[in-house]
Amino acid sequence: MDIRKFIPILQWLPAYSKEDLKGDLPAGLTVGVMLIPQGMAYAMLAGLPPVYGLYAATIPLLVYAIFGTSRQLAVGPVAMVSLLVATGVGALADPDAAGFVQYAILLALMVGLIQLLMGVFRLGFLVNFLSHPVISGFTSAAALVIGLSQLKHLLGFDIPRSHLIHEIIGNAITRFSEVHLPTLLLGLGGIVIIMGIRKFNKTIPGSLVAVIAGILAVVLFSLDDKGLKIVQDIPVGFPALSLPLFNINDLQALLPAALTIALIGFVESIAVAKAMQARHKDYEVDSSQELIGLGLANIGGSFFQSFPVTGGFSRTAVNDQAGSRTGMASVISACLIILTLLFLTPLFYYLPKAILASVIMVAVFGLINVKEAVYLWKADRRDFIMLLVTFLATLTLGIEQGIAFGILLSLAFVIYKSAYPHIAQLGRMPGTREYRNIVRFQDAAEREDILIIRFDAQLYFANTAYFKEKLQKMEAEKGNKLKAVILVGTAINSLDSSAVHVLRDIVEDYNTRNISFLVTGIKGPVRDIMCRCGLMECIGAQNFYMGVHEAVEALDKMNNGENEAEAARQKMATQTNITKPGIR
Amino acid sequence: MDIRKFIPILQWLPAYSKEDLKGDLPAGLTVGVMLIPQGMAYAMLAGLPPVYGLYAATIPLLVYAIFGTSRQLAVGPVAMVSLLVATGVGALADPDAAGFVQYAILLALMVGLIQLLMGVFRLGFLVNFLSHPVISGFTSAAALVIGLSQLKHLLGFDIPRSHLIHEIIGNAITRFSEVHLPTLLLGLGGIVIIMGIRKFNKTIPGSLVAVIAGILAVVLFSLDDKGLKIVQDIPVGFPALSLPLFNINDLQALLPAALTIALIGFVESIAVAKAMQARHKDYEVDSSQELIGLGLANIGGSFFQSFPVTGGFSRTAVNDQAGSRTGMASVISACLIILTLLFLTPLFYYLPKAILASVIMVAVFGLINVKEAVYLWKADRRDFIMLLVTFLATLTLGIEQGIAFGILLSLAFVIYKSAYPHIAQLGRMPGTREYRNIVRFQDAAEREDILIIRFDAQLYFANTAYFKEKLQKMEAEKGNKLKAVILVGTAINSLDSSAVHVLRDIVEDYNTRNISFLVTGIKGPVRDIMCRCGLMECIGAQNFYMGVHEAVEALDKMNNGENEAEAARQKMATQTNITKPGIR
Repeated sequence: MDIRKFIPILQWLPAYSKEDLKGDLPAGLTVGVMLIPQGMAYAMLAGLPPVYGLYAATIPLLVYAIFGTSRQLAVGPVAMVSLLVATGVGALADPDAAGFVQYAILLALMVGLIQLLMGVFRLGFLVNFLSHPVISGFTSAAALVIGLSQLKHLLGFDIPRSHLIHEIIGNAITRFSEVHLPTLLLGLGGIVIIMGIRKFNKTIPGSLVAVIAGILAVVLFSLDDKGLKIVQDIPVGFPALSLPLFNINDLQALLPAALTIALIGFVESIAVAKAMQARHKDYEVDSSQELIGLGLANIGGSFFQSFPVTGGFSRTAVNDQAGSRTGMASVISACLIILTLLFLTPLFYYLPKAILASVIMVAVFGLINVKEAVYLWKADRRDFIMLLVTFLATLTLGIEQGIAFGILLSLAFVIYKSAYPHIAQLGRMPGTREYRNIVRFQDAAEREDILIIRFDAQLYFANTAYFKEKLQKMEAEKGNKLKAVILVGTAINSLDSSAVHVLRDIVEDYNTRNISFLVTGIKGPVRDIMCRCGLMECIGAQNFYMGVHEAVEALDKMNNGENEAEAARQKMATQTNITKPGIR
Repeated sequence: MDIRKFIPILQWLPAYSKEDLKGDLPAGLTVGVMLIPQGMAYAMLAGLPPVYGLYAATIPLLVYAIFGTSRQLAVGPVAMVSLLVATGVGALADPDAAGFVQYAILLALMVGLIQLLMGVFRLGFLVNFLSHPVISGFTSAAALVIGLSQLKHLLGFDIPRSHLIHEIIGNAITRFSEVHLPTLLLGLGGIVIIMGIRKFNKTIPGSLVAVIAGILAVVLFSLDDKGLKIVQDIPVGFPALSLPLFNINDLQALLPAALTIALIGFVESIAVAKAMQARHKDYEVDSSQELIGLGLANIGGSFFQSFPVTGGFSRTAVNDQAGSRTGMASVISACLIILTLLFLTPLFYYLPKAILASVIMVAVFGLINVKEAVYLWKADRRDFIMLLVTFLATLTLGIEQGIAFGILLSLAFVIYKSAYPHIAQLGRMPGTREYRNIVRFQDAAEREDILIIRFDAQLYFANTAYFKEKLQKMEAEKGNKLKAVILVGTAINSLDSSAVHVLRDIVEDYNTRNISFLVTGIKGPVRDIMCRCGLMECIGAQNFYMGVHEAVEALDKMNNGENEAEAARQKMATQTNITKPGIR
């Protein structure tokens, strides 16, 4: 056991060089500077006072630098997870209630524990069940919900909380006359600044520029006296060590949210971590260790008043572009935030909430992926439907329900499709030894005495009935002249016991009707199963062939009375790894 | 539209002949005679007075004869459905309460409506998701539960109702001293008679013999005075027409039971109906019409005080062996029961309940399928586990929960397996053009400059990560000498949009690294997808081959500077049904 596998910092810290620092220092500072406005904005999105966003940008970054495997991943508060905190905790307490902050911190502990356990038990594979369209539909819907939740900060009047988007939009429109013009102008100005700077140079922290511009505007024009909302007092000092408080009811109530955040947070993080690894290739990202790293980051953070965090897209990209080489960049970012907490928070007294809203707005605009939807509409109608349904379910049923619905629906689609697989009847391509689908190749020649079918799926309980039915139909079309059926098994990836029962019935039926039943291209694992359960014996080893043409030739030879077995070829086609064959 | 498809009686009644009657008359009478004791026994199992078993053997049989497609299926009360009625209604009312009978009849109406709707919307395919091991495990467990529920009638003392088998057994053992000897002897005698006669001749209704013997024993030895329980008064007359009464709460409470009975009843019925069709082949069993037939039978029955019915194994087998040719046999059975109800019920006054219990016991003994479990243990360990888990879940969680658990588990297994499919690296068999798995065939020759892999599953979101990981690992083992990767697609039955994304990444990665990427044996539907989403263009049409050997030859030719495309062959390997290719 290599300790360095579990504490990846030991892989790079002992060999840390000046060269590395030359990359890490500017990267760490840039990300740190981004983190100040983003952290405060995402805390606001989560329903927390802005300072908690700064807390969440300290301890978790340090812990991840020790236990995480990615060297460019920038961990911290992100929009999606913050939204999930807002909805998850919002079900238990009002954002203004005293308990809200405690719940958010408890949630970080729970998320951390879940991720840690998933990592220890190597359950990282679970994210594979989130398909591309489901993630895309979910993310776009969540981005819309996030964006709309910030509308009140941009328009300057209160819109009642709601998870129904038409209610939010309706409210915003009917009360549009109440709009607070300075707030709206400042917010729109912030959006223009951030997007403009991003177009121009991605390493300049546009959101910080907007923050500074916003503070100056408030101070210069005394906008706070004119009704503009500002963040006001931010406590000075490092987050205090404090144990998350809880009782069993809280844990139960927060569990669905914790599970969703643990999963979604990990999906976002591992996706960007893998993308970085593919660019650098000088280290390996291990998904179980990533779960452990994120889990410990959340657990550690929860003892220092952090709400749930994960690795985010945008800051990681900036971190990488600014030249980060190791986790030291994250350590530098965290130090910058700590310095800010110790000395700079008074500077943000006049920061307008509208500017924080514009930071969030710009971040989530990028998450709405219309291009993918258009692509799927043209390329894969089924996956388009999946995306659309997940999108709509997330908007109408809620964030957690939407993703659960998407996962279940996509799995149901997979099962449904495998229950009605593609089945091809093959014919010989003139002048060749090749056999092809007669529906696709008009010149593929069918023989009236031989039915050749290729079944394009594993044969298992959900499709055995369909298989039998199709076989009977094709057989009936052939009529009385049918002498042999050849089952092409190149695409039959597995057999279960239900399929073995059905195949046995079919073989026995053909035996009584004097129709030969041959199989070709049966692959190793399936041969093993056939051997183990006696089906190979039932079909007869002499009826196993490698290719369709050989099977057809053998049939013709048999009909001509030349009944020699092609021993060598057959040996290949019936090879199995089973030593004790023939159980019935 | 052919009306005869929806009213199948019109297919055989107009051509009904004396010949047919010669088969149907003895079959109908034999089944009718069996139905008298079985009906009463199953009513007792369902928790109803015995006469309701006779009611359930009248109208439903007549309705099924009109609308059902099977000509040998014997519809009526069966053990499994009766047990489900007992547990389903038992949750709402005590067996002795006045409402119990009303609930059971309402359940028949609900089951009928569900089956009718399933038939109309052609949802019969849903039963395909019940795998062999799940049905087997569930049936064995249910049989155990049924058998144990009758223990009290055999032992002659009351055992409190429980769905936990160890409680029932424990109760029976601790109180065994209270056993009522005449009851036990009579019950065991009944079992011996029924099983003995069945061994001797299957068309003699052993249960009726046991019933007669039991009545005679009671009358001759005045056993009823000695504490033996008898059925006593059975009302005389045809079941009265009466509307099932219900309110919305009852419907809600009964819905889970109704869904389970509708599904399980249909599974049992369609299995035996298909087996009969396979024997006779002179008519067709249509699963949707079967649902409609059974649904109408239950609905019709519910208006004449019938509890839920379905087609049963044992009576159908007897019906067939006794020579039934059409649904007329069922009509004859129903008429015999009606005559019994009108004139013969007083004869059953002294019928001992222990005899009815022995009828049930013998019926369910046959349902416990140890052979299948032993077979699966040896042949398919995974399916054995499925059987065992369903069996245990049914015993411990309850009847309906057990089957639901089994279905979900078997689907989860399918998904899980498809997420980690078999992947083979191929090598050339010496002296042939064949390529085989190098792990299975020791003499298959690997080349150090070409990696040939065969992926044995559809490529979709749940396994793309695994595919990529495995590919990278195999690639790494090859080292720097790797010049080309050949993906063998004979077993890739489908691609979804997630897989397209991954393949595109892989191809682009190989392009930058100057490694050729070739595909062989890609099948029609997958070629269509590749073409539609631009992946074919991305891989390059010149890199599509039909067989591995051709791909390898082409690579060697390319390396030798001979770069002519084999136009004709390529045309075959890239054929698609798409007219507008190339969306990106």
